[in-house]
Amino acid sequence: MEEDILYHLDLGTKTHNLPAMFGDIKFVCVGGSPNRMRAFAQFMHRELGLAGDGEDVADICAGSDRYAMYRAGPVLSISHGMGIPSISIMLHELIKLLHHAKCRDVTIIRIGTSGGLGIKAGSVVITDTAVDSSFQPRFEQVVLGDVVVRSTELDKDLAEELLACSREIPDFPTLIGHTMCTYDFYEGQGRLDGALCSFSSEKKLEYLRRAYDAGVRNIEMESTAFAALCGLCGLKAAVVCVTLLDRLEGDQIRASHEVLWEYQQRPQRLIAALIRKRLGLGPRSSRKEISLLWA
Amino acid sequence: MEEDILYHLDLGTKTHNLPAMFGDIKFVCVGGSPNRMRAFAQFMHRELGLAGDGEDVADICAGSDRYAMYRAGPVLSISHGMGIPSISIMLHELIKLLHHAKCRDVTIIRIGTSGGLGIKAGSVVITDTAVDSSFQPRFEQVVLGDVVVRSTELDKDLAEELLACSREIPDFPTLIGHTMCTYDFYEGQGRLDGALCSFSSEKKLEYLRRAYDAGVRNIEMESTAFAALCGLCGLKAAVVCVTLLDRLEGDQIRASHEVLWEYQQRPQRLIAALIRKRLGLGPRSSRKEISLLWA
Repeated sequence: MEEDILYHLDLGTKTHNLPAMFGDIKFVCVGGSPNRMRAFAQFMHRELGLAGDGEDVADICAGSDRYAMYRAGPVLSISHGMGIPSISIMLHELIKLLHHAKCRDVTIIRIGTSGGLGIKAGSVVITDTAVDSSFQPRFEQVVLGDVVVRSTELDKDLAEELLACSREIPDFPTLIGHTMCTYDFYEGQGRLDGALCSFSSEKKLEYLRRAYDAGVRNIEMESTAFAALCGLCGLKAAVVCVTLLDRLEGDQIRASHEVLWEYQQRPQRLIAALIRKRLGLGPRSSRKEISLLWA
Repeated sequence: MEEDILYHLDLGTKTHNLPAMFGDIKFVCVGGSPNRMRAFAQFMHRELGLAGDGEDVADICAGSDRYAMYRAGPVLSISHGMGIPSISIMLHELIKLLHHAKCRDVTIIRIGTSGGLGIKAGSVVITDTAVDSSFQPRFEQVVLGDVVVRSTELDKDLAEELLACSREIPDFPTLIGHTMCTYDFYEGQGRLDGALCSFSSEKKLEYLRRAYDAGVRNIEMESTAFAALCGLCGLKAAVVCVTLLDRLEGDQIRASHEVLWEYQQRPQRLIAALIRKRLGLGPRSSRKEISLLWA
């Protein structure tokens, strides 16, 4: 291909010098919300001790409103919207970008929010296996009208390394478990409070308890596609999500904005600890620093 | 339910007076891009002759960055992101909002972008039937781990009414056809230029030609879920998308930003004509006015 236009990122091989812009990227962190991924880039800017306060971090994809992209040193922070189709488009174009930029040894981590299963709200789940709504470790991709089944394995060493990092952050519980990925937030996750609901509270709890018994500890909407695409393209990948509620106790997210904001920083703090360790920097972020930073 | 929190819209029945805010809404227009839906609200503000220039239209969902929502008179304009899961979350919360606000006789229209099949780039397709990647008029919704098949019928009278309105806008071709809805932009739509591709150009063209022969005239990523959910909830719904390229001729979107921006106004102009007609206002927007407006 003479020119490759990464349409949804508003980047391209002819219009941008991708090796110069991205060749030294070693960590890519992705998450649903553009504001959160901007905040993560600002946070990493400080965590890495980069010059300036990092507040004016620029959106590299400013020409498109589909995704937002920021960088802080060797860390790229990108939003992916909600759901498998949205993250898939971003990942295809991101993986092509990393290829064009000749990046090497990139670690990619999804830092997201999720519903918990049988664990305290605010817990952080490191995914060992992403499973579908039948609790199977597979992702079904339609290719030219036919279903192709793909593995959703994630990098085991990276998950263990993240768990080891979490032991140095005593402020919140972190655990390893299966993550269930669905195509829908309401009916697909057994919520009773959507515009439509055709099942009883009993049926819902029976389903969620079966998920728990199969090892599922949280539910979100991107992990199977993320694991499958990164795995096929040879990227070491992890999924680290905070839980905003315990789905065995309810459907609605009722915590205050402040509590939810603090929850959302938890995966960020864990990833910052990993990146600092990998770069040979010591531990840094204390709860106090964080609360000052995000006040 | 004592309180209903529409989490992803950052609205709720206790925190907002939804009947006062939305009770007089008669038209809801939804589309992927927040910037485009903001521009549509500004455009409708002028088309309806509302006071002020409408440039400072406020995002009603400013407390969340998941979706953006604007209003212009009786018209609500909301972004839904990309893909079925993303539009489904928004629709569940929107439909609950319309219910809580006691709205009556609401018409809902998706105004989107798409890839065309065998038609000129810039053509506008009014969907008669939304079909899946096997060209079937169905939407498969997973409920508690089981697949439920739903109809994707859209309102036939509304489609005909839109086609009649299009006859008064000679600047671009408008047609009625089937719209194929996929879960993926690259492999799922037979693109050769994703990060992964396991099929030949011949297989791709064979698939796209089969789609054409089945009546498909454009391809996008939301219409089946939109048709199914609106249909089940009794909303009269239409899908009107402009085509950014002809997929029988290529995969990449190579038109300039300016050309693409003008294309994206085409469904907006058609919907404005319908809304003006419904409200008893005469025809108004000429190409010159539009180009001044969006210059």
